[in-house]
Amino acid sequence: MALYVYKFGGTSVGSVDRIQKVADKIKQARDLGHQIVVVVSAMSGETNRLVDLANAVQTEVNPREIDVLLSTGEQVTMALLSMALQAKGCLARSYTGSQIKILTDENHTKARIEAIDKHILQADLAQGYVPVIAGFQGVTANGTITTLGRGGSDTTAVALAATLNADECHIYTDVDGVYTTDPRIEPKARRLDKITFEEMLEMASLGSKVLQIRAVEFAGKYNVALRVLSSFKAGNGTLITYDEESNMEAPLISGIAHNRDEAKLTLTGVPDLPGIASKILSPIADANIEIDMIIQNVASDKNTDFTFTVHRNDYAKAFKVLEQIKHDLGAKAVIGDDKIVKVSIIGVGMRSHAGIASTMFKALADENINIEMISTSEIKISVVVDEKYLELAVRTLHAAFKLDQINS
Amino acid sequence: MALYVYKFGGTSVGSVDRIQKVADKIKQARDLGHQIVVVVSAMSGETNRLVDLANAVQTEVNPREIDVLLSTGEQVTMALLSMALQAKGCLARSYTGSQIKILTDENHTKARIEAIDKHILQADLAQGYVPVIAGFQGVTANGTITTLGRGGSDTTAVALAATLNADECHIYTDVDGVYTTDPRIEPKARRLDKITFEEMLEMASLGSKVLQIRAVEFAGKYNVALRVLSSFKAGNGTLITYDEESNMEAPLISGIAHNRDEAKLTLTGVPDLPGIASKILSPIADANIEIDMIIQNVASDKNTDFTFTVHRNDYAKAFKVLEQIKHDLGAKAVIGDDKIVKVSIIGVGMRSHAGIASTMFKALADENINIEMISTSEIKISVVVDEKYLELAVRTLHAAFKLDQINS
Repeated sequence: MALYVYKFGGTSVGSVDRIQKVADKIKQARDLGHQIVVVVSAMSGETNRLVDLANAVQTEVNPREIDVLLSTGEQVTMALLSMALQAKGCLARSYTGSQIKILTDENHTKARIEAIDKHILQADLAQGYVPVIAGFQGVTANGTITTLGRGGSDTTAVALAATLNADECHIYTDVDGVYTTDPRIEPKARRLDKITFEEMLEMASLGSKVLQIRAVEFAGKYNVALRVLSSFKAGNGTLITYDEESNMEAPLISGIAHNRDEAKLTLTGVPDLPGIASKILSPIADANIEIDMIIQNVASDKNTDFTFTVHRNDYAKAFKVLEQIKHDLGAKAVIGDDKIVKVSIIGVGMRSHAGIASTMFKALADENINIEMISTSEIKISVVVDEKYLELAVRTLHAAFKLDQINS
Repeated sequence: MALYVYKFGGTSVGSVDRIQKVADKIKQARDLGHQIVVVVSAMSGETNRLVDLANAVQTEVNPREIDVLLSTGEQVTMALLSMALQAKGCLARSYTGSQIKILTDENHTKARIEAIDKHILQADLAQGYVPVIAGFQGVTANGTITTLGRGGSDTTAVALAATLNADECHIYTDVDGVYTTDPRIEPKARRLDKITFEEMLEMASLGSKVLQIRAVEFAGKYNVALRVLSSFKAGNGTLITYDEESNMEAPLISGIAHNRDEAKLTLTGVPDLPGIASKILSPIADANIEIDMIIQNVASDKNTDFTFTVHRNDYAKAFKVLEQIKHDLGAKAVIGDDKIVKVSIIGVGMRSHAGIASTMFKALADENINIEMISTSEIKISVVVDEKYLELAVRTLHAAFKLDQINS
C-alpha cells in the first residue's frame, strides 16, 4: 500500500465525461489499497471565461479580486470530482486552498507556498477518504485568497506530496511521459522511463512543455518522486527522481530540447573596458526584458562583440534600447536576428564523459549546419542555429547520440 | 451619513453591463457620504449551469459538495463587482461567507446563520472600503462551506444589517416595490410606500414573490428596516418596518394576495370522534405533504366533513393517502378539487376595525363568486374560490377596499 498524490490538469477534467474517467482511475487505485490525495485544475476553458469577464469590468488588473475570481475554477472541479467519486462508492471530500490552509505569501497572482497544514488530510486518509484539493490556490495568514501563477496546480501537488511524505506524485496530463525529443519533429523519439530532476529542469527551461520548471525545482528540493503520465492512456509514464544509483548505466544524453522563442542581438565594436557588460545589460533589465544566453569574446583589438538572446516578443524593444545606448558606449553598430532557434542536448552522463561536445559539433557540421552561439552547463550544451535547420538539427543529434535505442 | 446594506439579486448582476450599473449605484451612495456593505447573488443562469454539471456526475445529491459547487457562483459575482467598483475609483474588497465567518449550522443546502464576525467589515468601513459579500453562503465551525437555501442572499443581507446595526437594508430586485396587488391582474395596483413586517409576512406566505418569507421573519425579529427597490428604475421602493406610530392613519387593508398553487381535499362523512383530525393528518404528514388551510365544521349528525388544502404538486399523492385510510376511519368518500385559488386581504388595520370580513364577502357575492373555504388570522382573511374567478375576485376586492387610492 502506497500514498500517492495525483494531479489532473484542465484537459484531463475538461468535461463531465472526463471527470468520470478520472474518478474511475482514482477508484482503481483505492481498490488496490493505495491512499490517494487528488489535486485538480479548473476545467479547460473555464479560466479563460473568467479572465474575459474580469477584463470586461476592470480597467487595470486588480490582483486581489482576480485571485478571488480565478480560484472558483478549481473549486468547481473539486466539487464535481468529489461527487463523481462518491457516486462510484469511493469516499471523497473536497477542499479549497483556504480550507486546508495552504499558506502563501501575499504576492497575488504569483504567490509562493510557505506551509501546508497536513492534519485534515491525514485524518481523512486514515478514515478512508480521498481528499480532493483545488490546485493553483492558497490563502494568506489573514485569510485572503491567493493564486500561485503558471503551473500552480503542479506546484500544489508537489507541495502536498512533500508535506505528506507521499511515495510518488503523479502528474496526469495529455502526454504519456517525457520523450528524448519532440515526437512531432523526430518520430523515432522514445519515451524515457526515468530522468533526473536536473535533466528535467534543463528540459523545462529549454522549452519542453511537459512540466512547469517551478514544480520540478520544488520536487527536486524536497526530493519528491514525480511521475508524468497520460490521463487518457495506460502506461507508467516517466519517473523524475534523483539518480541515486551508480552512474555506470546512465545514458550519456537523455534528451534533446529546442526553443523557438528566442532572438539574438549583438552590439559590435564595443570598447573592452571593465564593467561594460553591466553598462549594456542594465538598461535592458530596466526595460523589464529577460536575457537568456550571453556571449562576449575575448577582445583582440581593445574592441569586442557582445551578443545575447532575449524572448522573441522582446526583440524589437531590446533593439531600440541598444540603439539608444550605442553612442554612449562607443559601440559600432547593433545587429540582430529573430530567425534563430536554440537546440540543446541534456544528460547527467556528460559530467563523466569527454567528447560529448565534439560529437555534437561534428554531427551538425556534417550536415552543414552553422553554429552561431554556444553555451554550456554541467549537464547541457546549447547551440543557436538558423531556424530553418531546427528539424534537421534535432534529428541529426537524436541519431548521433542513438536516442532511439534504450541505454544508448 | 447612514450605513446601508445593499443586496443585489441574480438578475441585477446578470451581465457585465448590469454589474457596471450596480457599481454606479453604489458609487453614488458613497459619493453622498454613506457607508455601504453589498451582498450579491450568483449571476442569473450560473446556479442552473452548476446544478446541471452536478446532476451529470452524481447519482444522488451530495449535500456537502453541492454547497462547495454552488458557492462559487456568488464568489464570481463578488470579485467582478469589486473590480468594477475599484475601476470607478471606489475602494472595495470582496469576501466569501467563510472569509467574514458567517457561521452556520451543518445543515447543508439549507443552513441557518448562527453568528457573523463584524470586525473585518467594521475595519473596512472605517477605512472607506465597500465590503462586497457573497450572499447565500456560510461556513461551519470546522470550516466546511454551507449554503442557506432559497432566498439565502436576502437572509445574508438582513443578518449583516442586524449585526452591523445598519440604518436600512435595501433589497434591489426587478420590481420597484411591494404593490397593493399583482399589477399584471389589476393595473390600478399601487406601490406601497410602507408596509409592516406582519403584513409582508402574510403577503410572502400567500404567494407574493417579492421577498422570501425567511428574510422578512429575520428582519422582523431583529428589527431591521427593509426596503425593496428596483435595480433598474429610480424610486424609493417600499419600506418594510414595524408600525411604531399610531394606527390612526393606517389603511384598513394594505394589499391583496393570491395563490394559484393549492388544491383542496375533503373527506366526507367522517365520524366526529376526538382525535379524528390527527388520524387524518398524520398519514398526510408521514407522506411529507405540507398542509395549508384546514376546515372542520361542527357535526350535525355525528358525522362531519373534513377539508384541507395542499400544494397542487402533492394533490394526487394526498388523494391516494386519503383513499387508503378512508375505510379505517369510517369515512364516506374522498372528494377533491385542484382548480381552486386562494385570495387574501391583508392589513394590520383590520385588528381595530369591524366589518372588514362582511365587506369582503359582500363584494364577492355581488359578483356571484362562490366562497368554498374561509380562513382568518388577526391581520388576514383568505377565501378559496374557483380558479376561473381569480382575476375578478382580486379586482373586485381591490376596488371594494379602495386600494387604488392613497390612505384608503
